[in-house]
Amino acid sequence: MAPQRPRGRLRYATSIADAVTKAWLIVESVPERLDVKQSVYAEIERSAANDALIASSTSGILPSELQAAMAHPERLLVAHPFNPVYLLPLVELFGGKLTAPAAIDTAADFYATLGMKPLKLRREIDAFVADRLLEAVWRESLWLIKDGVATTEELDDAIRFGFGLRWAQMGIFETYRIAGGEAGMQHFLDQFGPTLSWPWTKLMDVPELDDELTAKIASQSDAQSGMYSIRELERIRDDNLIGFLQVLKSADWGAGKTLAAYEKRLYDVAANVPAEPEKGQPVETLAIRVPTDWTDYNGHMNESRYLQCFSDATDGFMRQIGVDQSYIENDGSFFTAETHICHLAEVRALEAIRVTTQVLAGEGKKMHLFHRLFHVDGTALATAEQLFIHVDLSSRKASVPTPDVAETLASYAAAHAALPAPEQQGRYIGARR
Amino acid sequence: MAPQRPRGRLRYATSIADAVTKAWLIVESVPERLDVKQSVYAEIERSAANDALIASSTSGILPSELQAAMAHPERLLVAHPFNPVYLLPLVELFGGKLTAPAAIDTAADFYATLGMKPLKLRREIDAFVADRLLEAVWRESLWLIKDGVATTEELDDAIRFGFGLRWAQMGIFETYRIAGGEAGMQHFLDQFGPTLSWPWTKLMDVPELDDELTAKIASQSDAQSGMYSIRELERIRDDNLIGFLQVLKSADWGAGKTLAAYEKRLYDVAANVPAEPEKGQPVETLAIRVPTDWTDYNGHMNESRYLQCFSDATDGFMRQIGVDQSYIENDGSFFTAETHICHLAEVRALEAIRVTTQVLAGEGKKMHLFHRLFHVDGTALATAEQLFIHVDLSSRKASVPTPDVAETLASYAAAHAALPAPEQQGRYIGARR
Repeated sequence: MAPQRPRGRLRYATSIADAVTKAWLIVESVPERLDVKQSVYAEIERSAANDALIASSTSGILPSELQAAMAHPERLLVAHPFNPVYLLPLVELFGGKLTAPAAIDTAADFYATLGMKPLKLRREIDAFVADRLLEAVWRESLWLIKDGVATTEELDDAIRFGFGLRWAQMGIFETYRIAGGEAGMQHFLDQFGPTLSWPWTKLMDVPELDDELTAKIASQSDAQSGMYSIRELERIRDDNLIGFLQVLKSADWGAGKTLAAYEKRLYDVAANVPAEPEKGQPVETLAIRVPTDWTDYNGHMNESRYLQCFSDATDGFMRQIGVDQSYIENDGSFFTAETHICHLAEVRALEAIRVTTQVLAGEGKKMHLFHRLFHVDGTALATAEQLFIHVDLSSRKASVPTPDVAETLASYAAAHAALPAPEQQGRYIGARR
Repeated sequence: MAPQRPRGRLRYATSIADAVTKAWLIVESVPERLDVKQSVYAEIERSAANDALIASSTSGILPSELQAAMAHPERLLVAHPFNPVYLLPLVELFGGKLTAPAAIDTAADFYATLGMKPLKLRREIDAFVADRLLEAVWRESLWLIKDGVATTEELDDAIRFGFGLRWAQMGIFETYRIAGGEAGMQHFLDQFGPTLSWPWTKLMDVPELDDELTAKIASQSDAQSGMYSIRELERIRDDNLIGFLQVLKSADWGAGKTLAAYEKRLYDVAANVPAEPEKGQPVETLAIRVPTDWTDYNGHMNESRYLQCFSDATDGFMRQIGVDQSYIENDGSFFTAETHICHLAEVRALEAIRVTTQVLAGEGKKMHLFHRLFHVDGTALATAEQLFIHVDLSSRKASVPTPDVAETLASYAAAHAALPAPEQQGRYIGARR
């Protein structure tokens, strides 16, 4: 939801030398064979700078093995992300025996700037950490299917209607800590510990994934999910993940805290681009795509989300005149007193929309804005005329903005004075009283 | 978000006989000792009807053992829910050797009416299904802590920043199906299968949860979560879960599909209560608590959520005049054309609020409503005057409602004609054009 950085440039190289010569970070994602990876590293090292980082996305080969034949093994690390990589923040980071700790730190800083959550592992171990946990569930699931206790769908439901919901925001330990009550984790462990030796999981062997078991799983999976194409499943999954991340962002918790920090960085970058009011031009204050959960039973964006667009546009305008997070913490904020919305056309999920804002007045405690919401194709979707009062957040009473903000707001009002009055300004519904 | 059923009556009984005499479903949640449970069943059977269901919430004892000494063992089943029970829909249902299948079916129907997701297991097995998966993760986690590979916080982060987010909406099989691409599950298994025999999980033994390991886990958990009280962690967890469920409800997927079905049931119950317009009385159209993710950086409910309240109130009113799901599918809906909101006071998270609706006019294609939002303490929070147009959803053009709906709407308009015109009706911002 934050202003995006300008789109970068993607270039396809026709040789490893061409790809790595000027790179400072080289991500290696070739097939999971040690000999292939080692020969690629040898080729990289012939052309890359000696201090360029090399991050392997391997899911299972240890970095000590990967780096064994390298000329500069200290810059080799594993950076292991999770699908869908563009939405899940986790990336496991760790090196081998010869990796320099500074290489891990540099990579961690870099992945954080992408909005990811670098998890530095304490030491290398087969399958790393997250995949070991996944593997444990996978093996137990295979046994339950092989023994006819549950189908793939029943196993999935046992996850997503129960503990899976918990794990999107707290892991197994924090969840169990709550179960222990105020007596804490020690109490929980005293209670739960003895069951550890009960015969609850198949511990002693690994199910053979023979043709029969493979066919059973594949046909159960078809029965469960075969009505959707893979593209449809991806879309459903991604929409749900985006929704979860927005929920967690509101709570400033877990993956949402990471997202909030990323968006703050984007807002800061945008705020550093000097914004001068352009005479006779409304300001662009929002540019997003309609999230899929913003629509309602009528098949279009719900009316409350129109106001959310205008609210976000006001936030964008406030940042432009200096009402940012630090101002709000110390000097005050603008509260909405009155709003008049005119709906002009429908808009559907995933369509690109933008808001422009015209300052009708900005003086003393008052700010008077006129927002226009457009489809990117130019269709006018709605307008909102809004009156705001500047408020001191400790007394919750009306107050005047700081001189800096007042001056900047006045400069926008002056720059917009030449614009024609909007058609919908001063409208009322029905008969005027 | 749906209209609640009237609050039930909770009565504490001083004896088992008193508690069970008139019951048709008896939930047994006494300590996890077979002898204690069996003696409680004996006492229940002396007073309960012979066909009353008895559902044990045991986490580990098999129903065949539980029912072994019962006079009517055919009505004994396990109904195993998950914390927090009031938010997680999953309940595992299954019987023992002597349980009648009809008992499971009846219980499944009942739990579904509570908005839960009954998962009927194919057969009894130690730890049932979900806890076997949890146990597998738990054991692997204990090894990783014991061996100093990761702390409780790092393990939790490996879950909640990665696969935990996925599992709130799809389980392990549906997720991996996507990873297989259009080639499907078979392709995924062929790729992934060989790694099963790699040394990825500690298979051969169980870590001893001795004092040293217990103390290590407890102190790591304190470092991770000790800054929150258990009550605070519960509040955070529950708020996040509610947010996830609302996201999934919008998508009609997984646990959200269960919630949507539950809410539809509640709406249907409310619709069956005959609603006659009361002369000179606005209609109550919404009564909720402000969800915690509806507030913004100003510490109060965001303006867009005011409009969501009014939008939901309009939905409530529409249902009262017969514009329900089946009407919308077949006959049309009302679209908002224009809205004027006046903000009168702030409201914070979790406060109870309600909306009343006054019909200003309802004739032909138009509906003109005036909503008032109140705190339950009587404070006026906001008003919204709204004009709606009835629309044919296939042509997306204005149309007239069905005669039934038109008549009911007119009867509300007539009943409200005697009400004084609202102070904020016909308002405009600034100078009228």
